[in-house]
Amino acid sequence: MFLRDFISVLGGEAIGEVAQPLLGVGTLECATAQQISFLANAKYRRSLALTQAGAVIVAPADRDSSNLPRIVVDNPYAYFARVSQLFAPRQSHAAGVHASAVIAASAKVALNASIAEFVSVGEHCVIGEHVRLGAGCVIGDDVVIEANSELVARVVVYAGCQIGARTTIHAGVVIGADGFGFANENGVWLKIPQTGRVVIGDDCEIGANTTIDRGAIEDTVIGNDVKLDNQIQIGHNCRIGDHSIVAGCTGIAGSTTIGQRVMIGGAVSITGHLSICDDAVLSANAFVTKSITEPGMYSSGLPLMPHREWLKNAAQLRHLDEIVETLKTVAKEIRKPGTST
Amino acid sequence: MFLRDFISVLGGEAIGEVAQPLLGVGTLECATAQQISFLANAKYRRSLALTQAGAVIVAPADRDSSNLPRIVVDNPYAYFARVSQLFAPRQSHAAGVHASAVIAASAKVALNASIAEFVSVGEHCVIGEHVRLGAGCVIGDDVVIEANSELVARVVVYAGCQIGARTTIHAGVVIGADGFGFANENGVWLKIPQTGRVVIGDDCEIGANTTIDRGAIEDTVIGNDVKLDNQIQIGHNCRIGDHSIVAGCTGIAGSTTIGQRVMIGGAVSITGHLSICDDAVLSANAFVTKSITEPGMYSSGLPLMPHREWLKNAAQLRHLDEIVETLKTVAKEIRKPGTST
Amino acid sequence: MFLRDFISVLGGEAIGEVAQPLLGVGTLECATAQQISFLANAKYRRSLALTQAGAVIVAPADRDSSNLPRIVVDNPYAYFARVSQLFAPRQSHAAGVHASAVIAASAKVALNASIAEFVSVGEHCVIGEHVRLGAGCVIGDDVVIEANSELVARVVVYAGCQIGARTTIHAGVVIGADGFGFANENGVWLKIPQTGRVVIGDDCEIGANTTIDRGAIEDTVIGNDVKLDNQIQIGHNCRIGDHSIVAGCTGIAGSTTIGQRVMIGGAVSITGHLSICDDAVLSANAFVTKSITEPGMYSSGLPLMPHREWLKNAAQLRHLDEIVETLKTVAKEIRKPGTST
Repeated sequence: MFLRDFISVLGGEAIGEVAQPLLGVGTLECATAQQISFLANAKYRRSLALTQAGAVIVAPADRDSSNLPRIVVDNPYAYFARVSQLFAPRQSHAAGVHASAVIAASAKVALNASIAEFVSVGEHCVIGEHVRLGAGCVIGDDVVIEANSELVARVVVYAGCQIGARTTIHAGVVIGADGFGFANENGVWLKIPQTGRVVIGDDCEIGANTTIDRGAIEDTVIGNDVKLDNQIQIGHNCRIGDHSIVAGCTGIAGSTTIGQRVMIGGAVSITGHLSICDDAVLSANAFVTKSITEPGMYSSGLPLMPHREWLKNAAQLRHLDEIVETLKTVAKEIRKPGTST
Repeated sequence: MFLRDFISVLGGEAIGEVAQPLLGVGTLECATAQQISFLANAKYRRSLALTQAGAVIVAPADRDSSNLPRIVVDNPYAYFARVSQLFAPRQSHAAGVHASAVIAASAKVALNASIAEFVSVGEHCVIGEHVRLGAGCVIGDDVVIEANSELVARVVVYAGCQIGARTTIHAGVVIGADGFGFANENGVWLKIPQTGRVVIGDDCEIGANTTIDRGAIEDTVIGNDVKLDNQIQIGHNCRIGDHSIVAGCTGIAGSTTIGQRVMIGGAVSITGHLSICDDAVLSANAFVTKSITEPGMYSSGLPLMPHREWLKNAAQLRHLDEIVETLKTVAKEIRKPGTST
Repeated sequence: MFLRDFISVLGGEAIGEVAQPLLGVGTLECATAQQISFLANAKYRRSLALTQAGAVIVAPADRDSSNLPRIVVDNPYAYFARVSQLFAPRQSHAAGVHASAVIAASAKVALNASIAEFVSVGEHCVIGEHVRLGAGCVIGDDVVIEANSELVARVVVYAGCQIGARTTIHAGVVIGADGFGFANENGVWLKIPQTGRVVIGDDCEIGANTTIDRGAIEDTVIGNDVKLDNQIQIGHNCRIGDHSIVAGCTGIAGSTTIGQRVMIGGAVSITGHLSICDDAVLSANAFVTKSITEPGMYSSGLPLMPHREWLKNAAQLRHLDEIVETLKTVAKEIRKPGTST
């Protein structure tokens, strides 16, 4: 493709033009003359000067930072995403049901859906137009999956759950397993049946081996355009608002509500029954035990240090309260009349 | 159902009676007039006053906190669990082996067991009465699964492992993969064959995508009535005592022993070769590097703060030991004869 | 086997000989007279004195620490690993393709490979000599798996990924799912197609339910002799050097490079775009936000304490910066001329 091809489809302003058609995208460091790259962060401007890319996508502020053929747009990263999508259109799958799939008689499967080998679909399911169920998916009874969604492979969806349109669910995900609810009676755990569902919106993406538990009584609800990375655990009754995004290995305990446009880093732990407000940002490894009511970025976590220093510092951490008491005493003493001038 | 129906099956004292039969359970906030709710924690007493539930389960102390038809019992939460079980009895599965399942000739499968599509059962396995193996489960050779246990879907059990009676294992669980054991020889890792088993007791529940490794030489042992949430990792040779409960995303490294009735929060990390005594409680995100010998609740973790404050505080954390030294010097100096009165 | 049998295959010096053949390995604490044990760590020397083992493997320094028949070698743990391998040779699987497997017409599967039930192999795959694909594995198009590797069960390998020789991948692993890449455009997330691959070297082992994402543009690369435990998450574009080892529940965010012979403990979080140098050691639960340029051991994490103490100490942690300011003021004040002698 030439720059003019991108412009005609995606807009933006072209400065110059490539001599040979572009064949794909690349990073500034690794792109070849047949690839287009982008600069979205000023700290990589040095790479822009050195890149071997055939063309670049830049913001207006970097309009003159390069002599390469270039496209100038307000949001180079988003434009790059769209260019990448042009080069790598989503794979389509042949319509039809593989002979080995086991589809319950009462399930309704769209004729243009693609059901791979070793898939199970339970009673009364509704599988929408152009839905793809990859190899080994297990869909319980009464599940609804709306149009154009894809379950890549080996995804399990328990009975009664709902998945919106254009949602992608990666391999190994488990949707709708029982929430963790037990009552203790004389030292023995009684199971509390988990009768809610998981309801997932449109345009979501859920990463490999992530788990989302069904609600205890009400539903666990994932909004629209929510992006969950790999190996995330979402407890029962949680609600995650539209456009929120969560990085890998994060765990959210039961009955916690996450607002809209919340950004949660990797390996964050959020305890249960909290409320995280719209537009909050939690940095990686944050440990959240209280609700957040003001937008902004929040952090916790002890920084890394050489092991010997950590041993010394960690030992003091156990006594921080006493240290502060000593300090108070000292401060008081020094300010007594007669000691300080 | 009417309150009298619950009383006749489960005991307790009814005060008043519902006019219309109850159809299910609900939370105080969301229950309708056809649902029964409960108050187990005094801090929700305000919700009791506002609930639209048709009836409630309360403790003796709250006998008069509501005018609704109610059941008074010592443990409202456990009673609620039993009521929920009456409304949502465990799903039963048709007995028999699906035509697509691959069962080794030497395996013994109870006639009333239910083996779903795409299940593999290895040589010499013993699958007990009323066991359910859901779609896509892979059972290695020489595995024993006792009566009334259920492997929901896509559970893998490696060769030689044992699972007790009435145990539920959710989708994506892997039981008995090799423990992580390697010896370094001149910079190259040599595998130590992991020849122990995993032995799981009766009445356990194991959450989605949890992994329990087989022992290196001896077995990894999970007791009776142990409840493990999703995405937990249990290392080789661990032992977990009866009635212990572990929340999601927790990792327990190899050869650690957990006592009975231990409660472990989510995202806890426990290093290897430790011993955690009976009745210990570890709060969420705790990092455990030493054995615990006294019951009680233990915690760690830096609390969350606005990112700018965290940056300042975290910088000081690296120097805590020096801070304490300075404080000691100051305290000593101030107490020198002549400086303080 | 007798000690002389080990010596003849594995080298080392035998002192004494067992009267009866040894049948297996055991720990010092549990071994019987038919088992051989080892002492690799001086702190277990007391167990050596008490062991019921029939023979032991010891280092030259412990040559005379026992009267048992023994083998003296420089690296007892590595020798023990090799002895264990003699007792527990890797299981072999019958060659051939199970009738239920779905193999694309264009895939090349070695005649002596072993393909179990319910396996899918996509177009243009190359499955090498003696490769084992266990039940339920899903192999996308254009995947190469080299000789003698084993995917135990229910492993998913996305299209285009490569796996070296003699590599073992445990159940539930997902190789090559999309990396987590989205660009925000006016509050909506645009997917950035993830077109790189995952390339895994020879002699690796990957634990149950671990996930390794494909690169965004370039590849995610795992070197040779890399050992990954269970439930690890490796983000897109990461590179892990030869002979590195990572314990369970660790997460490595995208575009981070790990050197050679790096040892990473369990539940470590490493943020993205970092570089960890050769021979670094990260202890369990470490939180890594900056690159590491010097070999050595690094740690972080607040130590565990009784909950009441933690509450008090954690409250002060939020104010550490102010505490230090107070301390500085006090120190300054006390050293003013006239206040201290």
